[in-house]
Amino acid sequence: MPKVVDHHERRSAVVAATRSVVAAEGIDAATMRRIAYEAGCTTGRITHYFTDKQEVLVAVLREVHLAAAHRMAVRLSEAAPADRLRCVLEEALPLDDIRLDEWRVWLAFWGRAAGNADLEGEQRARYNDWASLVADLLDLRPDDPAVDHLIATVDGIGLRATLDPLAFPPHRQLAALAARLDV
Amino acid sequence: MPKVVDHHERRSAVVAATRSVVAAEGIDAATMRRIAYEAGCTTGRITHYFTDKQEVLVAVLREVHLAAAHRMAVRLSEAAPADRLRCVLEEALPLDDIRLDEWRVWLAFWGRAAGNADLEGEQRARYNDWASLVADLLDLRPDDPAVDHLIATVDGIGLRATLDPLAFPPHRQLAALAARLDV
Repeated sequence: MPKVVDHHERRSAVVAATRSVVAAEGIDAATMRRIAYEAGCTTGRITHYFTDKQEVLVAVLREVHLAAAHRMAVRLSEAAPADRLRCVLEEALPLDDIRLDEWRVWLAFWGRAAGNADLEGEQRARYNDWASLVADLLDLRPDDPAVDHLIATVDGIGLRATLDPLAFPPHRQLAALAARLDV
Repeated sequence: MPKVVDHHERRSAVVAATRSVVAAEGIDAATMRRIAYEAGCTTGRITHYFTDKQEVLVAVLREVHLAAAHRMAVRLSEAAPADRLRCVLEEALPLDDIRLDEWRVWLAFWGRAAGNADLEGEQRARYNDWASLVADLLDLRPDDPAVDHLIATVDGIGLRATLDPLAFPPHRQLAALAARLDV
């Protein structure tokens, strides 16, 4: 079915181009014209695959989420049982340039999500998937305070490392995640 | 010195108006024209006090940070020694509408900070202040992994509660903060 493949590939090229622009320069830079330029197509082709820019942005968010989920699944399949939780949490942190780019996309979207029903819905779906995965590994419910705590800690470390990557190299991120507190 | 008071008050009115717009509708909505409308002044008056919109935005970020720092200082002065850390951390979470608005401002700015030297610098200054305060209360260095962990956890809880306030009422935020993990 070459037409279906074409459709999928062309759509993916638009999403990948948008993602690169958002990660490097933020959402404002991702105009239809700029996306078309980066994807090597016309703006008409973009509007053939997406009803509007909002739909492109939601597709980017979903793609970033799925890419991370895929990497986590691979790490889970390879990890010894005792290392499974650590592997998944580390995969979520911005420990390399690929994940730092993904974090830049998250930050850009979070800044836009408040009051935007589509983006808020995407965020909730992402958190639901992510909380279910962590909860399974801890054998807890997804809304257990311990699951909330762990997800929040990963988010907070990732946030700070994305805002100040030079001050938060991988070893500092991992040390913060591992810290046990008696406060 | 009535002229100085006027200057300060007018500048504050512009910052307060910008903050309201950013919290309610995001940074994009905070055009010079809209800020002027909300502040009840002309765009000319804004450019009399600020060189450009970026300078207004940095002033908003600083104002939100200082307001939170002030509330923390008040709570610290009133708290029993054993409650001081808990009081400060709770003051940082979006447990009421005022703090939820502050969090919306933070998210909006984080989404814009990457690659923007002024906003990145503001963020670093805020984190330095905040880490020093938490470190003092724990009697640790500001870059201790335990300090990083605690700040990250508060940030992650605040982030998630801001993106989905209905699912994260105060009791869930506080339970997540208090959760002790053996993972």
